[in-house]
Amino acid sequence: MKLAKMVGDRFKEKPTDCVIDSHALMMRGGYMKDIAKGIYSQYPPLKRICRKIEAIIREEMDAIDGQEVLFPVVMSSGIWEESGRYDSIGSEMLRFTDRNGARMLLGMTHEEAAVHLVRDYAGSYQNYPFMIYQIQTKFRDEARPRAGLIRVREFTMKDAYSFHTSQEDLERYYRIVYDAYNRIFARAGVPQVITVASDSGMMGGSVAHEYMLLTPVGEDSLAICENEDCDYRANMEAAESITENEKSGADEPLTEVYTPDIHTIEDICEFLKTPLTRSCKAVVYQKNADDEYVVIFIRGDLDVNETKLTNYLGEAVHPALITPESGLNAGYIGPVGLNVSGKPVIIYDRSLMGTNNLSCGANKDEYHYTGLCMERDVPDAEYVDIAKITDGGICPKCGQKKIKISRGIEVGNIFQLGTKYTSSMNMTYLDENGKTQTPIMGCYGIGVGRLAASVCEAYHDEYGPIWPITIAPWQVHLCALRSDDAATREYADKLYETLQADGVEVIYDDRKARPGVMFSDADLLGVPIRLIVSPRNMEESVVELVTRDKSIPEKVPLDNVVDRVRALIKELTDRIYAEA
Amino acid sequence: MKLAKMVGDRFKEKPTDCVIDSHALMMRGGYMKDIAKGIYSQYPPLKRICRKIEAIIREEMDAIDGQEVLFPVVMSSGIWEESGRYDSIGSEMLRFTDRNGARMLLGMTHEEAAVHLVRDYAGSYQNYPFMIYQIQTKFRDEARPRAGLIRVREFTMKDAYSFHTSQEDLERYYRIVYDAYNRIFARAGVPQVITVASDSGMMGGSVAHEYMLLTPVGEDSLAICENEDCDYRANMEAAESITENEKSGADEPLTEVYTPDIHTIEDICEFLKTPLTRSCKAVVYQKNADDEYVVIFIRGDLDVNETKLTNYLGEAVHPALITPESGLNAGYIGPVGLNVSGKPVIIYDRSLMGTNNLSCGANKDEYHYTGLCMERDVPDAEYVDIAKITDGGICPKCGQKKIKISRGIEVGNIFQLGTKYTSSMNMTYLDENGKTQTPIMGCYGIGVGRLAASVCEAYHDEYGPIWPITIAPWQVHLCALRSDDAATREYADKLYETLQADGVEVIYDDRKARPGVMFSDADLLGVPIRLIVSPRNMEESVVELVTRDKSIPEKVPLDNVVDRVRALIKELTDRIYAEA
Repeated sequence: MKLAKMVGDRFKEKPTDCVIDSHALMMRGGYMKDIAKGIYSQYPPLKRICRKIEAIIREEMDAIDGQEVLFPVVMSSGIWEESGRYDSIGSEMLRFTDRNGARMLLGMTHEEAAVHLVRDYAGSYQNYPFMIYQIQTKFRDEARPRAGLIRVREFTMKDAYSFHTSQEDLERYYRIVYDAYNRIFARAGVPQVITVASDSGMMGGSVAHEYMLLTPVGEDSLAICENEDCDYRANMEAAESITENEKSGADEPLTEVYTPDIHTIEDICEFLKTPLTRSCKAVVYQKNADDEYVVIFIRGDLDVNETKLTNYLGEAVHPALITPESGLNAGYIGPVGLNVSGKPVIIYDRSLMGTNNLSCGANKDEYHYTGLCMERDVPDAEYVDIAKITDGGICPKCGQKKIKISRGIEVGNIFQLGTKYTSSMNMTYLDENGKTQTPIMGCYGIGVGRLAASVCEAYHDEYGPIWPITIAPWQVHLCALRSDDAATREYADKLYETLQADGVEVIYDDRKARPGVMFSDADLLGVPIRLIVSPRNMEESVVELVTRDKSIPEKVPLDNVVDRVRALIKELTDRIYAEA
Repeated sequence: MKLAKMVGDRFKEKPTDCVIDSHALMMRGGYMKDIAKGIYSQYPPLKRICRKIEAIIREEMDAIDGQEVLFPVVMSSGIWEESGRYDSIGSEMLRFTDRNGARMLLGMTHEEAAVHLVRDYAGSYQNYPFMIYQIQTKFRDEARPRAGLIRVREFTMKDAYSFHTSQEDLERYYRIVYDAYNRIFARAGVPQVITVASDSGMMGGSVAHEYMLLTPVGEDSLAICENEDCDYRANMEAAESITENEKSGADEPLTEVYTPDIHTIEDICEFLKTPLTRSCKAVVYQKNADDEYVVIFIRGDLDVNETKLTNYLGEAVHPALITPESGLNAGYIGPVGLNVSGKPVIIYDRSLMGTNNLSCGANKDEYHYTGLCMERDVPDAEYVDIAKITDGGICPKCGQKKIKISRGIEVGNIFQLGTKYTSSMNMTYLDENGKTQTPIMGCYGIGVGRLAASVCEAYHDEYGPIWPITIAPWQVHLCALRSDDAATREYADKLYETLQADGVEVIYDDRKARPGVMFSDADLLGVPIRLIVSPRNMEESVVELVTRDKSIPEKVPLDNVVDRVRALIKELTDRIYAEA
């Protein structure tokens, strides 16, 4: 393709709404244009990158016996009512009615559609196992779309669904997908993607993993054990919090302390000159469904993990609005003498179990207690793990204090769903003995655009993306400097044709533009191999070859250019495939 | 792929809601499953067919310098308000609000998105011409989805948009697309697709063509001139109606006739013993916007072409509800003494121009006129072509009475849009002289799934589709009869592997099923080349090879099978490409 006719502008200025590099560079490089918040059109370079990623995904899915199907973007509510998710998913699912008033929605995931497609078919154990997948547009009405393609509302996703007759078979296949995913990310040029145990959230099921690209701009917090003999890695949402709970000397008496103008646990600890670990903090939520209060008591230095809280309650919550009628004394809430209106849920985090001599609120304006002893003063407390794991905290697997909190972008996920969908949607099969059974499902997703942006986040410099050759929009960026020079143009035109005839993907810049403009455009397009034809190079009978990462700068004799390019494409590809 | 594990059921009974063969066969063959009215999921065979069609389209679009992009399925209303179509398109456009109350819609076409994508980019004449295209999901909230994939609500479409600096350049490129489309249909196996002039409808613009596959089950009526020296072909919606208007003797006086219980033009002509051509019929509509009446007078034997009517009025209409207050005497409406309430539009079809001695309504209960002479009695009438062309009617091009009305399925369309979108959306460029100009657009569509269904409609027998090899889900259908026979299974397994290793696409049926079941399944999958391995064939050291259309039945010696298959694939492909 000739750059002169390619649609899309490239420009220098960083758009003001771009907070991460991949977003800024992909806007500046003419990869995409927003048509609404979190909704983008794609220009040719991005479309080409996405098609290459899709081709890699398709190959790997086919290689593990995946069958490509297609589900609709628009679905009627029926099957979602069967599964119960029409009501349980919040406003991120876009619902509307069609011209006849029928309730419809935009697919943000397709478990229901997958079960619908195969439940009549797979009536015998002999049909199992099988996996179906699609690559299709999805829509998720995000409250805060941001970071370019990292968190959008409309996106292309590969989603796969496997069906099994036993948990063992699901686990066997899950492992196969797990490995296929690692190959996909390696082939896309990001072998550094790691897996972490994850929360299965709205998908249901138990075991789940996310594939994470570690980067400071990632949206997810990950707990990774730095003990090199330990492989513990989990999304912070799912990580168990373990604390060392010790008594601090003999139990002291529970004592009211006058604490005017002290409302936070930090302030009371500073006032008392005691560490935060010797305090019992209250955190209050309300249930979304009925606004009933949920009071969590937790060690003063720890925070509540809202994912664990939601999973424990089995319903969604929001930070509480504490009214005079609630019975709660904001700033002075404690476990002794607590009296909350309605049907409150009181939860004690495991970090408090067996501890003593804590400070806490006295449920009375301007008073706190000291000397709270959990066993003595709250004898009926049941303890739950509801705290966030902390940096430097104890690894749930090896027990060492080696947890490091890092940030990552989730580029894929895999779930063992169990029978959540098959049983709610009445999908059954007859086993070897003619007995009716419910199949067990797994599901597996990769966001195509997000992966493209993640690769850009992993590989770029201040001038533009540095695309791995396996997903780069083109393999070669050919610049003809001074294309008004007859010999230069003639050679460059010929080289363009020869390379294309040889199956090489070339973007050809034959504009009458200054070298600076041509090179900064080339940097923004991030094509791995750059060839520069110019009058000066023609005089030396060479073409300059530079890789986008600047690791290879060389002058190639004119009659060796095609061979050298071919060899370099192979070398760059092989280097990536060696990781896959 | 092994048939035993392929998702989807095949069955014998024709579903009751299937009125056309392609719909019935594609349901019976496990190609698709409806998830809502007019919304289907695709099983692997259909997904494979669609991917092949898409690959053909992509190749042909790339070959005419198309740049593949991607527009969103969900758009905000803004750009549609700019073009005016947010209001002008009816309820077939699905509108809704997002979680923040913003007005959104599902794309049914992407002219606005195309202009949005390139209007900042293409500011200089040097950027032109260019063409962008996408292959993407669209949604059109059809009132009556029907006929399987022929008229659905959600569909995959290739839509392309070209931008030019002159009408001449648009026409040059339009011709290039015209030819590319012919190649696409030929490569998909339907070279018999014809073009017809069409109405540009809601797209705007003037010149437009539709690609039609002639079939009695088609939804469109086409006027085709049977004079072999004439190439006139038009969608009936767009076809000019020409009549021979003659006086019938000397003008007779306008005479009231008592016609009790006679309400239709057929009845009055029978009563008077005059032909329908000597009558003036009234047809009444109301404007959708304000319910004002539109009264059309037309020769009694002709019908109103509602597309022409809408184009003439520039707004949509519906059949009238005639109230007592309207001033209209239903059954007795005529041009003389007509008195309609409000601001009626009165239209005279060209078929009445210069005619005389007609019967018509007298605008009085139970009375008609005879002796209506248009020039004398309605001297101010202006005549418009508003009639439907008729079978046996006059060809607007050659003037002979050779028009035949046929039915067809529209499989593609191309439009010269002009500046409808660029000017309403303020897209401009600077020409060679630095003057601001508005670019001229063309747009070009092909429905992928509809093309698949149309090919099935064109090629099938009572047992299933007969897919052309270029878009068939697989090239070879391998049946191992009696796969419990060791030698048979061993040979068939090996053949399956060898063919696949050779790049041949094989669906392999190694089920322990009766031959009748295997063959009827194979018929439903419609794969062009069938290979039958069986104990009896093994004894003869042959494999039976049969084409799906039964034109080639032969026995191929075991060691020649791969070569024969390879040669036959080439032969079948070449035969199709010879037409392209």
